[in-house]
This record gives sequence, structure tokens and C-alpha cells, in this order.
Amino acid sequence: MSKNVVVIGGGTGIFSVLTGLKKYGYNLSAIVTMADDGGSTGILREEFGTLPPGDIRRALVALSATDNKMVSDLFNFRFKSKGSLSGHSLGNLLLTALEKITGSFDLAVKEAVKILNVEGEVIPVTLKPTSLVAELEDGAQIKGETNIDIPKHDGSVSIKHLSLSPKVQANPEAVAAIKKADVVILGPGDLYTSIIPNLIVDGIPQAIKDTNAKVVYVVNIMTKFGETYGFKASDFVRAVQSHLGGKFIDYALINTDMPTGEILKRYEEDKEEPVKYDNEKFTNGVKVITGDFLRKGKYLRHNPQKLARALNSIIEA
Amino acid sequence: MSKNVVVIGGGTGIFSVLTGLKKYGYNLSAIVTMADDGGSTGILREEFGTLPPGDIRRALVALSATDNKMVSDLFNFRFKSKGSLSGHSLGNLLLTALEKITGSFDLAVKEAVKILNVEGEVIPVTLKPTSLVAELEDGAQIKGETNIDIPKHDGSVSIKHLSLSPKVQANPEAVAAIKKADVVILGPGDLYTSIIPNLIVDGIPQAIKDTNAKVVYVVNIMTKFGETYGFKASDFVRAVQSHLGGKFIDYALINTDMPTGEILKRYEEDKEEPVKYDNEKFTNGVKVITGDFLRKGKYLRHNPQKLARALNSIIEA
Repeated sequence: MSKNVVVIGGGTGIFSVLTGLKKYGYNLSAIVTMADDGGSTGILREEFGTLPPGDIRRALVALSATDNKMVSDLFNFRFKSKGSLSGHSLGNLLLTALEKITGSFDLAVKEAVKILNVEGEVIPVTLKPTSLVAELEDGAQIKGETNIDIPKHDGSVSIKHLSLSPKVQANPEAVAAIKKADVVILGPGDLYTSIIPNLIVDGIPQAIKDTNAKVVYVVNIMTKFGETYGFKASDFVRAVQSHLGGKFIDYALINTDMPTGEILKRYEEDKEEPVKYDNEKFTNGVKVITGDFLRKGKYLRHNPQKLARALNSIIEA
Repeated sequence: MSKNVVVIGGGTGIFSVLTGLKKYGYNLSAIVTMADDGGSTGILREEFGTLPPGDIRRALVALSATDNKMVSDLFNFRFKSKGSLSGHSLGNLLLTALEKITGSFDLAVKEAVKILNVEGEVIPVTLKPTSLVAELEDGAQIKGETNIDIPKHDGSVSIKHLSLSPKVQANPEAVAAIKKADVVILGPGDLYTSIIPNLIVDGIPQAIKDTNAKVVYVVNIMTKFGETYGFKASDFVRAVQSHLGGKFIDYALINTDMPTGEILKRYEEDKEEPVKYDNEKFTNGVKVITGDFLRKGKYLRHNPQKLARALNSIIEA
């Protein structure tokens, strides 16, 4: 029987993991953050009162069984015109329409799964609208995903704690998926806007504590100004453990193929740098898997195939 | 081997035939008019310079293998808001986006067929933009599908001849489908805005002349003011033959279950009435199949199941 693999995240990171893993034939479930409030998603959320479709859209595209590139292009297509449709991605429009038709975001996602011939489950982490609140080390409070993601605060000040306002209960399907999983993968993705927003939903830490699954955390390739400025690998792991309320991470996957050259300069201008493996700090029982997981493209991200190969060896271990 | 059945039309009529026939396991192809210029289709055509998606959308929905009702609801969903998306159907937006991505309407339809898991082919009758021109018996000329469909002229004056401006060549795939067909079904649908617009595309009459297929024409249930005022069944057949340039119709399917009661009054107010079978006029070699093909709903239309059963008996004869 195929293993049950649950991926928890948001943003482009979840896309990399899912596209990489789908070739291995696992039963894949993607649990996706619902605290996004920017861009086309933000406007639709404002105008139609829906849950945010953006991250769900990326997971659907990643798991679609049809020609991936085309579905991806279509879902991410934005109308460029002076006119009435400017700025909306077609995937967001589709999910918003399905929510209106079915009367719930939950059913909307299920219908999208059927229509797009998606292989696997895409599960909103919660079915209640909520927003992120970040408490900084200097005492400041930042509200809203976009304000954290594109920092309006001093980005070199660390985030002390992330919470949700209002507090919300987990989608029971997310809890069930974690409990029956063989492996749970956290990340990669923006720590405080894609990964931890899932882990602070009531019921999720308990499910991760209770599951018999191996829990793997994929540490980011690069730091992010405003979220993880100056972070080393151990800082990422500690932040996740802290928000989970316990040492539930069994494995940490850490890239050690350091990027070089021109591309780094662009990141340095944004005060971002490669995440270094500070092995001396890993004394807390987490098994560390290091390796070359880097994709050398316009952006420094995980290579889906390399990442999937490493994850596969953990899943099959 | 399954029989090749080609349905030529547009509007809601093609939807009735296709949904009825799809259960019989034929290789279905829908050839669809490209002269629509109203509503959401018209706006998109104006703003993005595309071919009209409306009739293609209906054929895709009819042939979709997924839960029909939901795909239909989704494709026909229109955003209701003061805001930016008002009036557009999601299916039209999807086809417009695919046309932009693929660079051609032809490829857009093929991609939609894949994504929606459509069983069968949906073929635009031409790949060139064009418009309808109707010449009336009183010498007046009406331009544009919407102006004919929602008459701005005296609707009791008959249309003498319909043409396209500019003249356009048939999509080679439409010609090929007709040539290899076992049965070609024309209609039902608005005579001068859904059926004949296909038959006046260069190459289509020749293909219908050359094919070995049985050619079936499904005569409308009701007349339409501005298009077929006062028409009897033979008038419909004669108009089709005249625009085809020859007696290529083998069968005419004519409803003889006359509707009664309240609903007729609404139609009478619009100067529309049930199409009567004037059998004395059928002396031109067309085999007539009469029967109860009526669906008694809010609108008087063909019942897809009854229609399909009658068509099936012709296909299998």
C-alpha cells in the first residue's frame, strides 16, 4: 500500500515539494495556510468575503494530473487590461466562483480537485477566516500576512511570537490527515507567513504530537528580511519547535550547497543570505540530513527532484 | 467500433443534443458557430480581440466527463458585484485566458478539452473572426448576431439570405470531422444565429455534400420572432437546404407533441408559436421522423433524452 504523506505549508515551497514527490506514487495530502491576504487574493477576500484562494491554487496546480505547465499557466494567468479584470489570477477567480456556488470554501476545494483531476488531497488548514499577528522582539505588533511578508517594520528585528486573530480551530480533515500519515513534511516556505501560520491553528500541534508519522522539517535555502534575518538552520528549527510547543521534529533537511556568484548580490541587496548549517547547535535529538538541494535559477530555491529524492529516502527508511 | 457522430450548431440546442447523446458511447464531435457577438462574449471579444467563447463553452460543458451540473454551474457562473468582474462568465474568462496563453483559439479549445476531461471533440467552425449579415425580404440589411437574435428590425419580415462578412474558410478539422462522420446532426437551435452561421462558412456545404454520413436536421420546437416568424417545419428545412446550396438533408426530426396552456401565452406575447408539421409540403425526398420530443419546463425546448432516443434509432438504422 502507498504511504500517506502529508505536506504542510504554503507559497511556492509547497509547490516544489508536491511536484517533486508526486512521481513517487504516494498518497499525497497538502495542508495549506489560510492567512494570506495580499494581491488578487486580498481583493477577492475583501470583495466577496471568501477564504484566501492563493495557496490552495498552488497546491492544486502542483497535484494536477493534467499537463502541469498548462494548468499552472492557466491558474496563474492574470488578465492585463485597462479594463475590468486587471490583476486577478484565473485560479483565484475559479475558486471564488466555486465557493459562491457550493456555499463553502471546503466544498469549493473538493470540486476543484475533481474538475482539475487532482491526484491527492488539498486541505485548507482551517475553514474560518483569520489573520496573522506577529509580536516582535522590540515589542511592536504587526498585523496581517502582507505586512509581515513585505516588511513595514524594521526587518532586522526578529519575530518573537506569531499568533492568529481570531483564534481558529483546525479543519477536522487536516487533523485526520496528520494522524493517519506515515510522514509529515513541514516546509519549505516562508517561516512566519507560510509554515508557522499552519502550526498555530488550534488542533494542529496536538495532531503532530499524537501522530506516529515521522515529522520532517525542510529548512529554507535563504533567509528573509523581516522574517528570518540572520537566521542559521538551528534558528529555523527552534522557531518551529517553539510554535509547536514541543520537540516533535524528527528530521531536519538542510541544504549545504552554498550558492555563489552574481545572483547572491541581488539577495544581499535585500539583506538576505544563504542559510548556514550550524551543526554545533543541533544537540536536541533532531536527525539532520544535509545535501545539495539547490536549484540554480533566477531565484535560489529548492530543486524539486533533489528535494524529493532526499524525502523519499526518509519516507522509505 | 463506435460510430462517428458530428453535431453542428450553437446556443442551448447543441447542449441538449450532446448531453442526450453522450450516454450512447458514440465518438461525438461538436462543430460550433463563431459568429456570436453578444453579452460577456461580446465584451471579451471587444477587449481582447478573441474569437467568441460562448458557444464553445456550452459544448465543452455538455461533453465534460466530470459531474455535469457542477462544471455547468461553474462555467456559466457570473460574478455579481459592483466591482471589476461583473457580467463575465467564468467559462468565457477561462477560454479567453487559454487563448492568450496558447496564442490561438484553436489550441485554447484543445487545452480546455484536456483540462475539463471532455469526452469528444469541440471544433470551432472557423478560426477567423467574422460577423453575420442578414438580408431581409424587404431589402434591409442587419449586421451582427445580437442584432438579428434580439431583433431591431420588424421581426415579421423574413430573412432572405444570411452571409458572413468577411467570408471565412472552414477550420480544416471541421471539414475532416464531417467527411469521416457516420451521421451529421444539424440543430436544434436558432435557425439564423446558431445553425445556418455554420453552413455558410466556405468548405462546410461542400463537406456535407461529399460526406457519406446520413444528414439529420432537427427542426425547432418554437418559431422565433425576427428569425422564423410564422415558419412551418418545411420552411425550416427549405432555409437550411437553400443555404447549403443543395438537398443534402436525409432526415428531418419534427416534434408533433404540441404544447398547451399557460406557457404558450408567454410565447404568444413574443409572437412565437409551436412549429407545425406541414406534411403536405414534404415532397422533396426528406425522410421525416415525427414524435414527442418536447420538454415541458419553463422554456419549451427539446427533451435531451427523447431527442437522443430518436437520433439513436437513425444512427443505428
